Order: sequence, then C-alpha cells, then structure tokens
Amino acid sequence: MKQILVKRDILKSNDDIARRNREMFREKGIFSINLLGSPGAGKTSVLEEMIKSLKAEVNMTVIEGDLYTTKDAERIENQGVQVIQVNTGGGCHLDASMIEEAMKHIEIKDMDFLIIENVGNLVCPASYDLSEDMKVTVLSITEGNDKPLKYPSMFQKSEVLIVNKIDLIEHTNFSMDELYKDIQSLNENITIFEISCRTGEGIDQLSMFFKERIKNKRGNI
Amino acid sequence: MKQILVKRDILKSNDDIARRNREMFREKGIFSINLLGSPGAGKTSVLEEMIKSLKAEVNMTVIEGDLYTTKDAERIENQGVQVIQVNTGGGCHLDASMIEEAMKHIEIKDMDFLIIENVGNLVCPASYDLSEDMKVTVLSITEGNDKPLKYPSMFQKSEVLIVNKIDLIEHTNFSMDELYKDIQSLNENITIFEISCRTGEGIDQLSMFFKERIKNKRGNI
Repeated sequence: MKQILVKRDILKSNDDIARRNREMFREKGIFSINLLGSPGAGKTSVLEEMIKSLKAEVNMTVIEGDLYTTKDAERIENQGVQVIQVNTGGGCHLDASMIEEAMKHIEIKDMDFLIIENVGNLVCPASYDLSEDMKVTVLSITEGNDKPLKYPSMFQKSEVLIVNKIDLIEHTNFSMDELYKDIQSLNENITIFEISCRTGEGIDQLSMFFKERIKNKRGNI
Repeated sequence: MKQILVKRDILKSNDDIARRNREMFREKGIFSINLLGSPGAGKTSVLEEMIKSLKAEVNMTVIEGDLYTTKDAERIENQGVQVIQVNTGGGCHLDASMIEEAMKHIEIKDMDFLIIENVGNLVCPASYDLSEDMKVTVLSITEGNDKPLKYPSMFQKSEVLIVNKIDLIEHTNFSMDELYKDIQSLNENITIFEISCRTGEGIDQLSMFFKERIKNKRGNI
C-alpha cells in the first residue's frame, strides 16, 4: 500500500483540477465513484463486499481518504486490490488535487473502476467535485431515517443511495416509507439499494448496477 | 421555539468570543456542555433522556445546531424545556459567535444548565471552542469501535464519552475492550458512560454525573 500526505495546490480551483482529472478518466475509460457517508455508515464494508463480488471481472483501484490512519486501506489491501491511502492530516474531506496527486502513484494500465472512499462526514465532502462519474452515499439504518432532510446536500447530489445494515431494522424505529418519501422530495432520480454487508442481502444487485456502468464507460473509448 | 440563522462576526476570533461567553456563564453559575458526535449517534435521544431525568431539579436550556431544519429542536421542545434553534445554513459546525447570538434570545434567569447540541460531524466541530465547560462526545455501538483512532481530535478533547445503543452490541462486531484500550491511548482522563436510550440503561448514572457538576458550578457563584 502506498500512503501519501497530500499538500493542496491552493492556487488552482478545485473544479479546474477535477475537470482535468475527469478528462483523463474519460480517455482511459475509467469509471469512478465518490463514496460518501457518516463515520460508521459502513462505507469500507460496502467496498469490501463490492470488491469480493467484482474483482474477478473488473480491474479495481481504491483511493482511501482518512484523517491520519491507514486502517481502512489495510482492510481493502487484504482484498487483493490496488489501494492508495490519502491522509488529509485532519482535514474533513478530500479534494480534486488530492485525487490528482494520488493518481501519480497508481498503476493505471487496464484499470476500469476507481472507487474513492471519502472521509466519514455527511456535510463537507458534498461540496467538492473529485472528478467522479457519480457520488454514492451510504446511509445506515442505525443512523435514523431523518438524516436526508437534516443533511440534504449530499443526498441531492448523489446518483445512488445505499441503505446499509438493513438486518438491524427490526431493532430500530427506522421508517423505510419515510426515508423513500424524504429522498424523493430531495432527489427524484436517485437509485436506492437496500443492503446488508453482514447477511450479503442486496450486494449482487448493487454490483450488477456498477458492472453495467463500468462496461458502458469502457465501451466508450 | 425561537429560530435564528446566524451571521458570523468574522472580525473577532472564535476564542475571544468564547472567552467572553465563558465569563458570562461563570458569573451566572451556568454549567454548559458541547454535545458532539456523528450524524445518527443519538445526541438528541441522549438529550431527551437527560431532560426527562433532570428537568424536575435543574433549569435547563438547549441550543440546537442544525444545517437547515428544526427537527431536533421540535423533539426537545416536546420535552418542555427552553430551546433555541441555530441554523448554520449548511455550515458544518457551530462557533462561539453563534452561541453569543443565541444567548441574546434566551431567558437566562435561574438557568443552571446549558446544553449545546452541535451539528452531527466527527471532524470539524472539535476545533471550535463554544465556551462550554466540557465537550461530551456520543459514539454509538453501530458506528464501530475503530472511530476514536480514526477521528482522534474529538475524543482527545472530550471530558466525557457516552457510548450509546449498547442494546445493539450483540448484533455487531463492536469490541468494548478495544474501545477502552484505544480511548485510553488518546485520553486517559475521559469518563465513559455506557448507555441505551431505548432500554434506559445507564441514564441515571449519566444524569447523576451532570447533576453533581451543575451543583458545583452553581455553588461557586
């Protein structure tokens, strides 16, 4: 695993750098997602399950964003895919310059799926374009169904919502009906997957969805 | 319920304003806490239980920090205590100027306990002194025991850690031993309460702890 503590190029705007990265991803046919959610929503667990399900057919790389540690990157490395750790040094989100820097350390040849796991935070990362094809937010049942209306920006900007830990729903007062209603009021085009990383429920459908998108992107080069 | 959208006084440093607020709280004998944690950790539920347990003996006021909504403040108002909503307009944390502004709208007479519920965020709020006597962090079992090492600043700066949702521990791989070990490595003086807002476990001990601190502060004026 490579680990970098990124210095930000504050002279260039985030959107300019994101545009440059995006152009490179387009040329290479790399499909990329920005994986978002609260601390403990289960982003890394979702990633582990997606890797198990996809790695035989898809060449995946993971950029792991964390404040200081390499804990999540170690979990991903155990899955046998290329991973690069980006430590923000306490910063509350990744930005496009960090992705640009990370890409210099990544073996791009034949890569077709880049997953960027952002810092666990339901507020700040929503404002930064990381050059991804789509934002994917993980919300866990145990956080409560009131979170989309309380933290709307991330849910408005996401193309996919993964509702994780559905095996725990009977132990909570989470209302799936209210969640769907609130989500629809914020973003009527979002695709929702209900999954459990513990039981495996819903993982196949999620992986199929991404496989299709990866194939489309690759087919366009 | 009063609701204010606060404009920040960017000319004065946060610490200067916090010092001024703190002096006022000292003069009035008001004990205050800054309640912190991830979205969905259960901060508002902890607050509801503490209010039920303490309101007969303690004159409490709550400042509710949220991006846009008044959802949490409505829950607190239902408990029959004074509450003021501070909306950050998308901002990821409260700051001392927001507390100063909120205090102008609060009936201070006879008040002895101020609880400030911060925006749900395990990163940014740790950097802002809100004039509190102590930072209190809520961590829920379902977030995982790896969170203190991944987001150390908040745990290092907190005097109390509330481990919430312990009724769900059997459904997770949360290790209480590892949590205690990691917390001790970050902050050996922290006081830990294990509670469940669903079953009521641990609430009495938590309330007793705060009652003692409130009494001490009031006794000093």
